[in-house]
Amino acid sequence: MKIGIADTMFSRVDMFEIAKKAIEDSMQAIKIERYTVPGVKDLPLACKKLIEEHNCDICLALGMPGSEKIDKTCAHEASQGLISTQLITNKHILEVFVHLDEGNDNNGELNKKKLQEMTHNRVYDHTMNAIALLKSKTSLSPKAGQGIRQGHEDAGQL
Amino acid sequence: MKIGIADTMFSRVDMFEIAKKAIEDSMQAIKIERYTVPGVKDLPLACKKLIEEHNCDICLALGMPGSEKIDKTCAHEASQGLISTQLITNKHILEVFVHLDEGNDNNGELNKKKLQEMTHNRVYDHTMNAIALLKSKTSLSPKAGQGIRQGHEDAGQL
Amino acid sequence: MKIGIADTMFSRVDMFEIAKKAIEDSMQAIKIERYTVPGVKDLPLACKKLIEEHNCDICLALGMPGSEKIDKTCAHEASQGLISTQLITNKHILEVFVHLDEGNDNNGELNKKKLQEMTHNRVYDHTMNAIALLKSKTSLSPKAGQGIRQGHEDAGQL
Amino acid sequence: MKIGIADTMFSRVDMFEIAKKAIEDSMQAIKIERYTVPGVKDLPLACKKLIEEHNCDICLALGMPGSEKIDKTCAHEASQGLISTQLITNKHILEVFVHLDEGNDNNGELNKKKLQEMTHNRVYDHTMNAIALLKSKTSLSPKAGQGIRQGHEDAGQL
Amino acid sequence: MKIGIADTMFSRVDMFEIAKKAIEDSMQAIKIERYTVPGVKDLPLACKKLIEEHNCDICLALGMPGSEKIDKTCAHEASQGLISTQLITNKHILEVFVHLDEGNDNNGELNKKKLQEMTHNRVYDHTMNAIALLKSKTSLSPKAGQGIRQGHEDAGQL
Repeated sequence: MKIGIADTMFSRVDMFEIAKKAIEDSMQAIKIERYTVPGVKDLPLACKKLIEEHNCDICLALGMPGSEKIDKTCAHEASQGLISTQLITNKHILEVFVHLDEGNDNNGELNKKKLQEMTHNRVYDHTMNAIALLKSKTSLSPKAGQGIRQGHEDAGQL
Repeated sequence: MKIGIADTMFSRVDMFEIAKKAIEDSMQAIKIERYTVPGVKDLPLACKKLIEEHNCDICLALGMPGSEKIDKTCAHEASQGLISTQLITNKHILEVFVHLDEGNDNNGELNKKKLQEMTHNRVYDHTMNAIALLKSKTSLSPKAGQGIRQGHEDAGQL
Repeated sequence: MKIGIADTMFSRVDMFEIAKKAIEDSMQAIKIERYTVPGVKDLPLACKKLIEEHNCDICLALGMPGSEKIDKTCAHEASQGLISTQLITNKHILEVFVHLDEGNDNNGELNKKKLQEMTHNRVYDHTMNAIALLKSKTSLSPKAGQGIRQGHEDAGQL
Repeated sequence: MKIGIADTMFSRVDMFEIAKKAIEDSMQAIKIERYTVPGVKDLPLACKKLIEEHNCDICLALGMPGSEKIDKTCAHEASQGLISTQLITNKHILEVFVHLDEGNDNNGELNKKKLQEMTHNRVYDHTMNAIALLKSKTSLSPKAGQGIRQGHEDAGQL
Repeated sequence: MKIGIADTMFSRVDMFEIAKKAIEDSMQAIKIERYTVPGVKDLPLACKKLIEEHNCDICLALGMPGSEKIDKTCAHEASQGLISTQLITNKHILEVFVHLDEGNDNNGELNKKKLQEMTHNRVYDHTMNAIALLKSKTSLSPKAGQGIRQGHEDAGQL
């Protein structure tokens, strides 16, 4: 089994290392293939090439969009591209985006520690999700409908 | 006949069970194939695989997007992907999304009971729609133009 | 010649009957194929199947999106899907959407009579446009650049 | 060489005639193929058919979207479709859209003369651009980076 | 190795010359192929043709969208098209867009010098990124997660 990990120069956290650590922690025999691009809009093709040219069975698309309106638009375009890529390749690509302003405190200022923790948790959890999806289409079913969040506290089942 | 049901961990209600119950209540000889993914953006590929790899004749894409702006964008991207998937596979995928804030009371606070009822009704009704669409392209014609709503009270014909 | 007509349960007016009447009034030897789906997002595949599986030469996609923000998003997604469907099938699909709030009076309340008239006119006129497009690519050229509106009064040439 | 020109009934100016005049003025041996559709959302398929069924080497997509929010959305959908059509056909389609409210005076009222002049200039200039693109991929290079505008005064190089 | 460079007449800075200079400075044996189009919405097909008809291994899509709302929409459409083009051709296209209002001072007026510097830096840096991507999929990995910006000061690693 091989997981492709595409990451960016734009991100302010080394998200690749977190994903790599999660895979190691999983104790599974999983190979890693990495692809680094400038920003999130370059991730769709990076993932396509990881799948088509490097035989990855699933991908993680790691990115940290900025907090400006233009950054939100970039993230939206990247997301559409990542969905298209999945439909072309028939492989899952888990989008793991952490928006820079998700780490803001209520006063609107960046809380670096909060952002780092959130990033760590989201990347780690989604890497585990990727490993589960590699096993079967119902590996995640026991967790369905439970308001699971990655990087935030779970919302919980109603 | 086989109905594919894709659901998410993100949802705060077990939407799969509602769809399953509706299919059982229909007393039709219909098989169910399930696929669980983390969130709504993972539903398009899950449905594609249910159709292409698991021979489903129609799919239900069950999701419960959050109430933040970013969640609305995610839902929009997922919807676009679900339409693309239908055009690729030539099978209907009924999108059954319940937005978390649809269950809010007028004061903006979440009314859990209201959300649960709405979710139950929308999933149940759309499962019945899926079963009708499996029969013929005019099974639903007697109900056309009547302002039918799923999960809300019908708006009615003018 | 065969015109495909896709309509929805969501619509509050029986738009199919209006299109059918227009085709009859045209006194042309045109067959009709109908496909009814729950809502506008289901129209792209319905039209694709009318064209590919039922040999329609052109389609009318009839829908009445609601007035909430989410309804506008649904209509947008449906419109994108209808354009994609045309590019895949090489057949025209005339989108005939009447937004529920187009029938509102200045005080923001729904004027049912106004909405019914607008719906009738738009469906009727676009059915005639479809019949013209079936004949040749310049059938509508004498009307080009004249500010023609369907369902509203023509804006006129400057 | 053949230029396809797709125009609409919705437009309030006969944009086709302006493009035709520009081609005649160019004194080039260029044939014209016309396709008239109801509105801008019908232009992508019209252009695809002009290219695929009528052997056009390039297209002009002429349209005049209205000034309401819904019209802006329609124009956006048409633009996405025109880009998709180019990627499918490998032929350029120059989108020549004039928004009705571009002709407004500062008081927000339509200045018909201003709109007509703007429309004339934009259609005329883009027709010349199309003729240049037919020659070679660097025909327009001497004008690159100069803040050229079609229909407005050039912004100029910084 | 061949880099395709697509640029526009709309841009107010000669972005091509900056990219060309960067490639020369790199001292690599890289050929350049240029394609000039009117505006950013014409860039996706220009890049596709540079890749498919002129054998470019990677492309730079250089553009300077205006500051109006309609310009933002155009840029968004172009960006979507550039991602689609990458997924079709399996080659990277680095989008290098500088929005005219990025060069504004706090009072909202255009600072020409600031815009020129930003444009120079962004084009230059992304050209270097393109050259790195030509070498291998991990050439940029040492710079991953460091908050690298092109045209602005780097945001830095947290």
